Amino acid sequence: MSCNLPVGVFDSGVGGLTVVKEIMHQLPNEEIVYFGDTARVPYGSKSKETVTAYSRQIVKFLQTKKVKAIVIACNTASAFALETIAKEIPVPIIGVVKPGAKTAAETTRSGRIGIIGTEGTIKSGLYNEFLHNTNESLQVFGKACPLFVPLVEEGWIHDPVTKEVASRYLAELHEKDVDTLVLGCTHYPLIRDIIHEVAGNGVTLVNPAYETARTLQELLLAQGLLADENAIPDHKFYVSDGAEKFREFANSILPCEMAETKDVNIITFD
Amino acid sequence: MSCNLPVGVFDSGVGGLTVVKEIMHQLPNEEIVYFGDTARVPYGSKSKETVTAYSRQIVKFLQTKKVKAIVIACNTASAFALETIAKEIPVPIIGVVKPGAKTAAETTRSGRIGIIGTEGTIKSGLYNEFLHNTNESLQVFGKACPLFVPLVEEGWIHDPVTKEVASRYLAELHEKDVDTLVLGCTHYPLIRDIIHEVAGNGVTLVNPAYETARTLQELLLAQGLLADENAIPDHKFYVSDGAEKFREFANSILPCEMAETKDVNIITFD
Repeated sequence: MSCNLPVGVFDSGVGGLTVVKEIMHQLPNEEIVYFGDTARVPYGSKSKETVTAYSRQIVKFLQTKKVKAIVIACNTASAFALETIAKEIPVPIIGVVKPGAKTAAETTRSGRIGIIGTEGTIKSGLYNEFLHNTNESLQVFGKACPLFVPLVEEGWIHDPVTKEVASRYLAELHEKDVDTLVLGCTHYPLIRDIIHEVAGNGVTLVNPAYETARTLQELLLAQGLLADENAIPDHKFYVSDGAEKFREFANSILPCEMAETKDVNIITFD
Repeated sequence: MSCNLPVGVFDSGVGGLTVVKEIMHQLPNEEIVYFGDTARVPYGSKSKETVTAYSRQIVKFLQTKKVKAIVIACNTASAFALETIAKEIPVPIIGVVKPGAKTAAETTRSGRIGIIGTEGTIKSGLYNEFLHNTNESLQVFGKACPLFVPLVEEGWIHDPVTKEVASRYLAELHEKDVDTLVLGCTHYPLIRDIIHEVAGNGVTLVNPAYETARTLQELLLAQGLLADENAIPDHKFYVSDGAEKFREFANSILPCEMAETKDVNIITFD
């Protein structure tokens, strides 16, 4: 395996770009091949079997791009598919849930942690599992927030409607008196301001993206796979539908202009 | 073709059940085979190519159930895929857009018609096309309402948030002074009360489901395919993901309890 091969990153759509942004920041020499499954987005309301089948197809696609490592930049797919797929492929693969849980455990002072995410991520109970593995006494409260993704995709990032929806969703966690809140869906950092405002100053928000990029760095370092320090990456973006729309969204999130986004029929990689 | 064969009905998910309800009401002897593409829902934000490819797979699946006719109970798929697929198969197939446009043209007095629907349906311009074919002088105003489907799926049917979102979306059409508003997405009849309240008494809401069921009746009659008057239908429901969740939703919409819903891997019918 050569250290100048790319890192594969995938998500159900655009949300994973918040993780890409963090990888670009922390590991500026790493080349990224991104895949967004825009033809089948969202994953958050779908079953474990379906999300695993979709993730498997994408991993096969990324392997054709000769990636040296894979990051599942989607909480739902990390929760549902990572464990299964890690056993099936020779390429090292990480998700966002474990890094997110690690940061939350390190952040909390009161030991009361809230997790917000999609229905799938919350139902999986995987954040609880990782947090309890770290420290059995932690109290973890999950809340699914299905409207956050469509609100972000509608672009209502600083909108009173989004604030009202956030107040509704977070009321339960407020009652539980959490001091740490995990943004357990890669779309949520895009409405971080509103979530912060509603949650209040006493609650620290955790974005798993930061620790995920760190975990990737440790993994590449341990395996002697970090890119050369003078490498100039040529990132590539693929989607299963609507390349042009994706490109617009991505250019508003990422620090660099994307050269090109290609449409791929992912089913042919099954 | 035997008149006691079933009618195939499909949608991206649960929304098409509002059309099924109307068919059950108007044509109580017709047996229905329903397919909801819950593994890939929603269609409204996806491209014409992708929605056509998905619709083609579903039509192939319905043909294995020996359907005598097919109803596309989804505005986006009707707008994007009906014309193409009608040329490819021997089974008669109808959508919801043409019947919806017909009703709207018959309903308006001022000649000013609003259409609300998904991004795909509105962008397709198909309602405009059918309305202008009927009467060139009609003025048609479209507005995409991407948050309505997730709000319905979250169950916020009688919620102030949904009312605020509706006020926002309908403000534009209000300014255009429309007297008729087409519910151009099969989910929208489920928030009909809120849409009516926001649109006001001067605006008549058109649900294409009623006229679609009538169009189906005319089609079956013309082809001598109406089911026997004493036939007792045994409806069947298939989904591509989450049969249990679908069943709960369906039982809250339909007039009868569903006996069973089966999960189907639709990709194998490609």
